[in-house]
Amino acid sequence: MSNPVLVEALRGDTVESAHRGALVVVDADGATVLALGDVQRPVFPRSAVKLLQALPLVASGAAERWQLTDAELALACASHGGEPAHVATAAGLLARLGLDASVLECGAHWPGHEPATRALARSGAEPSALHNNCSGKHSGLACLGCLLAGGADARGFLSGYTQPQHPVMREVSAALQAATGHDLAHAPMGIDGCSIPTFAIPLQALARGFARVATGQGLSAGHAVAARRLRRAIAAQPFMVAGSGRLDTDLMAHFGERLCCKVGAEGVYCAALPELGWGLAIKVDDGNNARAAEVVLASVAQALLVRDEADAAVLAPRVAVTLRNWRGTAVGALRPASSLQQALATLAR
Amino acid sequence: MSNPVLVEALRGDTVESAHRGALVVVDADGATVLALGDVQRPVFPRSAVKLLQALPLVASGAAERWQLTDAELALACASHGGEPAHVATAAGLLARLGLDASVLECGAHWPGHEPATRALARSGAEPSALHNNCSGKHSGLACLGCLLAGGADARGFLSGYTQPQHPVMREVSAALQAATGHDLAHAPMGIDGCSIPTFAIPLQALARGFARVATGQGLSAGHAVAARRLRRAIAAQPFMVAGSGRLDTDLMAHFGERLCCKVGAEGVYCAALPELGWGLAIKVDDGNNARAAEVVLASVAQALLVRDEADAAVLAPRVAVTLRNWRGTAVGALRPASSLQQALATLAR
Repeated sequence: MSNPVLVEALRGDTVESAHRGALVVVDADGATVLALGDVQRPVFPRSAVKLLQALPLVASGAAERWQLTDAELALACASHGGEPAHVATAAGLLARLGLDASVLECGAHWPGHEPATRALARSGAEPSALHNNCSGKHSGLACLGCLLAGGADARGFLSGYTQPQHPVMREVSAALQAATGHDLAHAPMGIDGCSIPTFAIPLQALARGFARVATGQGLSAGHAVAARRLRRAIAAQPFMVAGSGRLDTDLMAHFGERLCCKVGAEGVYCAALPELGWGLAIKVDDGNNARAAEVVLASVAQALLVRDEADAAVLAPRVAVTLRNWRGTAVGALRPASSLQQALATLAR
Repeated sequence: MSNPVLVEALRGDTVESAHRGALVVVDADGATVLALGDVQRPVFPRSAVKLLQALPLVASGAAERWQLTDAELALACASHGGEPAHVATAAGLLARLGLDASVLECGAHWPGHEPATRALARSGAEPSALHNNCSGKHSGLACLGCLLAGGADARGFLSGYTQPQHPVMREVSAALQAATGHDLAHAPMGIDGCSIPTFAIPLQALARGFARVATGQGLSAGHAVAARRLRRAIAAQPFMVAGSGRLDTDLMAHFGERLCCKVGAEGVYCAALPELGWGLAIKVDDGNNARAAEVVLASVAQALLVRDEADAAVLAPRVAVTLRNWRGTAVGALRPASSLQQALATLAR
């Protein structure tokens, strides 16, 4: 059985390409509100679960001890574009820990935000691990590691923190398991782009994790407090979680704490909808980039979150996306396919 | 009915993403050698048919009159990376025509080749239409326009050459129709990334066009000569057709005139296999980028073109592609799915 087509790409009036995938919305009890496609299939959530991976940073007390700001906490949950403010925020946290970019094990790459890459090249500089889209998460892991090290040498303790058996990574995986309720000991494991482990988890369990983030229900008391703290930090600093022109930043800049969403590589999206107490997870089968998952997320938000014209105006161009060519001529569109439209119509308030 | 999975993306040992699509191989009579998926569905071929679109440049006599070099002819069939040699070659042709980049209607964009973009930014310059991946095709169209203008002002004649009814574009569309044998008057039309029309054509007809390019059979005498001239130019200057690290360039640098292949946007690939007299066309349904179509193309070449260990060594890492993360760690792979492997096994020599 193949998953349904969720999003179509049109050129002129003709469907040029189509994206299949699965979508599930659940409540905090784990009950299915909406399921489209195979929602039991294990999916590598990639960066979509960074908020879950940051729970120990707050729950351990590390964030409080080093007085992490909203910007630093949001960056710990980010796949950022490597813009100057992202880089400076990661560098600032590391400096406060008495560390620097040399402890980060995420690898270096040119900024995902193209103007930032060109500006960096123009300045004659090269990218460092601070420009890696995961540098905030890794700086947060370093902060957690500083706490776990106790009085010992933090730099030495952190060596190998991206390995599955390192104390830092054991805390992160335990939080992911607790939030999703899925046994990771028997889950397929892979290595993520930033070198930490990633586990294949059924889409429905990922959605359950975000319903728990939305409500606190089903989380330990410490994780519930941590989830609320991280949601608030992200809502206060949405630029830090992604960056200029990025969907996560744009949507949360508008919706604030009403929506807590996060893209992942290979067509994944997860989100918490606190006012409904629901969580959702999306996987586009081809996973090739984020365009289809973004349309699915925006479509769900359109069905569930629109209260006024301003809400509608933010979502409309992200549900029906105009595609333009190099001269700026409108040449096509992305749009939710009929299967997705029909499924969401059953949900719309 | 959905198309079969052609390519899988693995993380560790687990399938993370999958790409469905269609593949057809035909001989010069249009008889099907291999068909997988829906090969009658109309597909926008995008840049995969640039060689067909360049037939009038040669058949009209324009290429001879302005003594186009192999590099210029290959660039006329290219989706290049905007590397300095690409830009200089397009600029050189325009200068010989008494024109410059201001006649090009393709729009400007930063080079697709990332190091070229960073070098351009480092130099303080901005991209022009010469950096557009289609600037060679458009320079070729300008050359054709100079001939069609007769003695008249070429710059004035060229204005609006990207419009469907302009004499230049009518020549291009007529060549595409003649080669594929498909009536474009009733085909869905869209606007391509570089602003010229693109027509949705059944995948099988696209493959037939490339079988004709491979053999000359079924083409007019002028187009048959032109196709051979363009194939030879591309084989002599494979860098010009794509660029550093690109599959088309790498494969043709090795296989020379044995393979004439071209990627198109949205998951399309077309190729002529002169030694077999066959043509092929690939469309990956999701169209999101080239990774899956590249694996399909390399898999077909592996089944049909391997004569010795050198051939095998060039293809093996492009059929089973190792995916690495930012630290260079192998984290996954692209591989042909079983449906594709089985279909190709029936073809293998």
